[in-house]
Amino acid sequence: MNSVRISIIGASGYSGAELTRILARHPYAKVEYLFANASAGKRVEELYPRFAKSMAGEYQSYAAEHALTSDIVFLALPSGEAMGMVPELVAGGARVIDLGGDFRLKDPLLYQMYYGREHRASGLLAEAVYGLSELNRAQIASAEVVANPGCYPTSAILPLAPLLKEGIIEPRGIVINSLSGVSGAGRASSVEMSFAEVNENVKAYKPTTHQHIPEIRSALTAFSGGDVALSFVPHLMPITRGIYSTIHARLATEITQVQVLDILEGYYGEEPFIRISETAIPEIRGVAHTNYVDIGFRVDRANDQLVIFSTIDNLVKGAAGQAVQNMNIMLGFPETEGLL
Amino acid sequence: MNSVRISIIGASGYSGAELTRILARHPYAKVEYLFANASAGKRVEELYPRFAKSMAGEYQSYAAEHALTSDIVFLALPSGEAMGMVPELVAGGARVIDLGGDFRLKDPLLYQMYYGREHRASGLLAEAVYGLSELNRAQIASAEVVANPGCYPTSAILPLAPLLKEGIIEPRGIVINSLSGVSGAGRASSVEMSFAEVNENVKAYKPTTHQHIPEIRSALTAFSGGDVALSFVPHLMPITRGIYSTIHARLATEITQVQVLDILEGYYGEEPFIRISETAIPEIRGVAHTNYVDIGFRVDRANDQLVIFSTIDNLVKGAAGQAVQNMNIMLGFPETEGLL
Amino acid sequence: MNSVRISIIGASGYSGAELTRILARHPYAKVEYLFANASAGKRVEELYPRFAKSMAGEYQSYAAEHALTSDIVFLALPSGEAMGMVPELVAGGARVIDLGGDFRLKDPLLYQMYYGREHRASGLLAEAVYGLSELNRAQIASAEVVANPGCYPTSAILPLAPLLKEGIIEPRGIVINSLSGVSGAGRASSVEMSFAEVNENVKAYKPTTHQHIPEIRSALTAFSGGDVALSFVPHLMPITRGIYSTIHARLATEITQVQVLDILEGYYGEEPFIRISETAIPEIRGVAHTNYVDIGFRVDRANDQLVIFSTIDNLVKGAAGQAVQNMNIMLGFPETEGLL
Amino acid sequence: MNSVRISIIGASGYSGAELTRILARHPYAKVEYLFANASAGKRVEELYPRFAKSMAGEYQSYAAEHALTSDIVFLALPSGEAMGMVPELVAGGARVIDLGGDFRLKDPLLYQMYYGREHRASGLLAEAVYGLSELNRAQIASAEVVANPGCYPTSAILPLAPLLKEGIIEPRGIVINSLSGVSGAGRASSVEMSFAEVNENVKAYKPTTHQHIPEIRSALTAFSGGDVALSFVPHLMPITRGIYSTIHARLATEITQVQVLDILEGYYGEEPFIRISETAIPEIRGVAHTNYVDIGFRVDRANDQLVIFSTIDNLVKGAAGQAVQNMNIMLGFPETEGLL
Repeated sequence: MNSVRISIIGASGYSGAELTRILARHPYAKVEYLFANASAGKRVEELYPRFAKSMAGEYQSYAAEHALTSDIVFLALPSGEAMGMVPELVAGGARVIDLGGDFRLKDPLLYQMYYGREHRASGLLAEAVYGLSELNRAQIASAEVVANPGCYPTSAILPLAPLLKEGIIEPRGIVINSLSGVSGAGRASSVEMSFAEVNENVKAYKPTTHQHIPEIRSALTAFSGGDVALSFVPHLMPITRGIYSTIHARLATEITQVQVLDILEGYYGEEPFIRISETAIPEIRGVAHTNYVDIGFRVDRANDQLVIFSTIDNLVKGAAGQAVQNMNIMLGFPETEGLL
Repeated sequence: MNSVRISIIGASGYSGAELTRILARHPYAKVEYLFANASAGKRVEELYPRFAKSMAGEYQSYAAEHALTSDIVFLALPSGEAMGMVPELVAGGARVIDLGGDFRLKDPLLYQMYYGREHRASGLLAEAVYGLSELNRAQIASAEVVANPGCYPTSAILPLAPLLKEGIIEPRGIVINSLSGVSGAGRASSVEMSFAEVNENVKAYKPTTHQHIPEIRSALTAFSGGDVALSFVPHLMPITRGIYSTIHARLATEITQVQVLDILEGYYGEEPFIRISETAIPEIRGVAHTNYVDIGFRVDRANDQLVIFSTIDNLVKGAAGQAVQNMNIMLGFPETEGLL
Repeated sequence: MNSVRISIIGASGYSGAELTRILARHPYAKVEYLFANASAGKRVEELYPRFAKSMAGEYQSYAAEHALTSDIVFLALPSGEAMGMVPELVAGGARVIDLGGDFRLKDPLLYQMYYGREHRASGLLAEAVYGLSELNRAQIASAEVVANPGCYPTSAILPLAPLLKEGIIEPRGIVINSLSGVSGAGRASSVEMSFAEVNENVKAYKPTTHQHIPEIRSALTAFSGGDVALSFVPHLMPITRGIYSTIHARLATEITQVQVLDILEGYYGEEPFIRISETAIPEIRGVAHTNYVDIGFRVDRANDQLVIFSTIDNLVKGAAGQAVQNMNIMLGFPETEGLL
Repeated sequence: MNSVRISIIGASGYSGAELTRILARHPYAKVEYLFANASAGKRVEELYPRFAKSMAGEYQSYAAEHALTSDIVFLALPSGEAMGMVPELVAGGARVIDLGGDFRLKDPLLYQMYYGREHRASGLLAEAVYGLSELNRAQIASAEVVANPGCYPTSAILPLAPLLKEGIIEPRGIVINSLSGVSGAGRASSVEMSFAEVNENVKAYKPTTHQHIPEIRSALTAFSGGDVALSFVPHLMPITRGIYSTIHARLATEITQVQVLDILEGYYGEEPFIRISETAIPEIRGVAHTNYVDIGFRVDRANDQLVIFSTIDNLVKGAAGQAVQNMNIMLGFPETEGLL
């Protein structure tokens, strides 16, 4: 196969660096531009010493005309920044994968409510494809704009979607508690994210108001066909990488462990990146530095609840890994290329 | 006041060491015996270098006749070991505070089901008092045997009990997700608790089967007067100390943040160790190394849920601190003595 | 005793908060002012939730006339800020304890070389007393300005000074490798100190150029009477608190473990905060959250070296604890008051 | 190329698992047997969930006749266990790479002194080749028994050997302070290595008596041609992976940063896994999960010292990675195969 020309906008953040790392090993990818305005002029190994000798490259200031020489443009920017760039890129013929939140919600008012700013490219929302690879493969294949899912949503939607669709669990009253490593907040300087504040600490944040709530709801509603309501509470934990979601849903029917397994295996048994266990409780160390999703569950008959455990690496399946998986789908490469 | 003579059985574990530390600063306590069979003959600073120069003492093998010279005997043993000792101690006239799980459940069959062994001192279960200081003060004051609560139950029961009693939340379908530091598992040698396994990892364990489930249910049922059902999932986190419980309960009535605050303040406003905030989300670092309980909450009207956050130090309010608080109650000392 | 009125300038940083905590338990101290310009108007528990209910207080903007109503003024500021304030405070009759580096070096040129700025209060350098409590007690007692030692110097000077004075080790070629927790860098926002960068990482920094090099040299030269030369390399480690110094010095004489112990015990045997062991290797967890210094050592006869291990809590003996110890000395209080 | 048949003895420990992981991606390697007596019958993903779906395999009890069907046998056992197996393997025609310490020292008396047991295969010591890939390539290529270097020695010997050989530094009085992550101690259950003891702690251990001292001395003496003496102090740190060595050596000559760089680049400039910087101070995060060695240095002319910083991942370049690098050398594969 010919190699595909790639630009990464926002290449110096954690997701951008993970993208850079994955694409450097991808046999058909050729990264042409690493855009990173604040780090322009620096070599990648100055920010990421682990890249020295294995990866050449220099960050440069963003220039649309350079990005437009690429076949695929990844945007790994804080939410709110991509929507100012994507229209020009799409108009110029690039196919775009946005790792931020700007194109995940179809409704610009919902965007405004949860992201606290007006949407400035709402004309593209209808055609943007939600890039949850396993559930949206066909649309991703032909998309011009892929909205790569958030890390929390990826961990929550994958196990819930089939169970809702099959009517195993009630679509209302779902409780999602998620634990996240610190890299999810990006490469940032703040007292709040400093080692001395995060270490030996845990706290919930943005309960009931996090911007991933409408993303999870919309996706589950779309995949299952019925309106879904849920309470979502993210927590910050003293680890660098990983998302751990523990989900409680009311059972809509009497069901056994094996039957739940059968349903999930029916949907995901052939998926290369989804691993389901009837007995094991997943752990973050099982997925760290990989593109896997590990799913476990317990039927709690005493409470008529299904408890689901789902874990991913927030920078891989929750960001850069899934973005490359989507690129593979878009270009007809084997879906696992560069990701095993 | 005269000083009270004290023995600690199981003094070399983490809870025992925390007891030793707290009691060394207590103006009316005189620790006579530190029993620890496996460490007998060692000085305390060999196991806990931080005690050197500030605390004298040597571990010795347990001997009931020595323990019986004490006014108060603390047992800080793995569950299952205390029930073989407490009857003799009570018969000999000692007042006992057991930090383990042997005397927390009234029903020996429930004990057998969740702890996996027969109860060998079931005759004492009726008179044992559940030592949740703020909710059981009067009974604790005159108790011969105090069953000091578990760490998870302490964090969950305190905020839930008043809300259930006042009919604010539904008594069924309560979802408790708790995160625990590693010291809760005790001073143990196992691959599972080794640094290399716990660090950069998170996992749920014993979902729906943990022995604290019947303890929380029984206590909440007793305090609120109605049958309570709940799903409880503990998680292990890479921190040394602290419990963080995030609780979802269905609202039984329309209510505001301020009204929830008023109810909790009505119960706990005068409590020296309970801090409630209408706005702040508690963090483990706020309570680490203290006897405080920090409680926050959010009315989630979109889901008709109340989300409650409750955090304690598992070794202090979740074990040794509450045990000393109970001792203060039993002996008529100021309740905060040694604990601020 | 009457209580002493106290101001803390820079009260909202980590050292300032530790001072606030220690002084709140000190029986003779009354903290009148918590100055913190950036946090002015905030209550202490907003920045430090653990202080809620146990400690009242509000940060306010610095005003010299308020500070001058105090008997003792602590400055817990980044180096370079105290020298603009101390002259006015001293002129106004306050006794000052500066936790920063501005008054530790006698030579303003040395200050300029290592701190990168001109000294603006060099007239006070001669009278400022280096506040290493155990070695400078008499001068501290009558000082107007105490320059509280740096954290690394405290850990290194205490074991080295007696051995140099007794001629046991060579005064040249001393190698000091120190490991520091992150709180030593203060409550700051920077990518470099963010959790995701510090966690699972270690690095040396400022080798051979750190500003504590002239401080250690000057103090050792003053205490031992001969010129001392040393190589000092600090390292940043993923822990919150603690300094661990491993020191190699060439033996000047044949000596045994017991003889080294005798010398150190001769100097420090009666010291309440110094603990020396002939056999044990100290650990940070032995001193964390305490004012202790733990010292161990090994005579390495094969290499004619003495290897010394010294550990402290950087925020306590390395900052706020030693500052209060010095205040106790200055005011004639028992030296351990508030510190055990 | 044909694939090479491989057995791993001790496959379930951390080094064994790292070997398993690396070899699974190696294009010419076919792992036939994973021997692990204590875990026999378990599947690899039971111990290492991250291997699920990507790697098949079951641990089995060791049987020499099975191992002898392999071309290369890796032993990843606690020191002392390999010497009972290697003679039979060599006699049977296998080429052996031992990751433990049994064949690193030429002198069985030195082995007995530092490892505390008699050597039971001393007849093989003469022919065993010390497997420091970059320094011993030719001998490794034809070796029957490769003694893979220890983690601390790898980090220390690589920068020191050329500088000693060129006479830049004095061969006596070298001071090596090393910091190690916990995985270096293996997958073990002990109170000492439990999370609650290691977290927020640092301590030196085995100062002046560690078994890597004679290994470093012997190797440096062999490579440089003159007798070398050194003091080595390892420290345990709260990270999972990584070795950080800070080395002080007396300068034997006047030299500049650039000249030191030139010497090191002269030896290692073409090496794929050694990265040297004249300006940057290396960090563990630069080498974690890689086979790289990062080296930095400072000429400290005030003290006539050269300070060297060297960091590796103890499980990769310090164990399994270097073992595969050696296998590549032995079999004529490209040396970086499976390791980039």
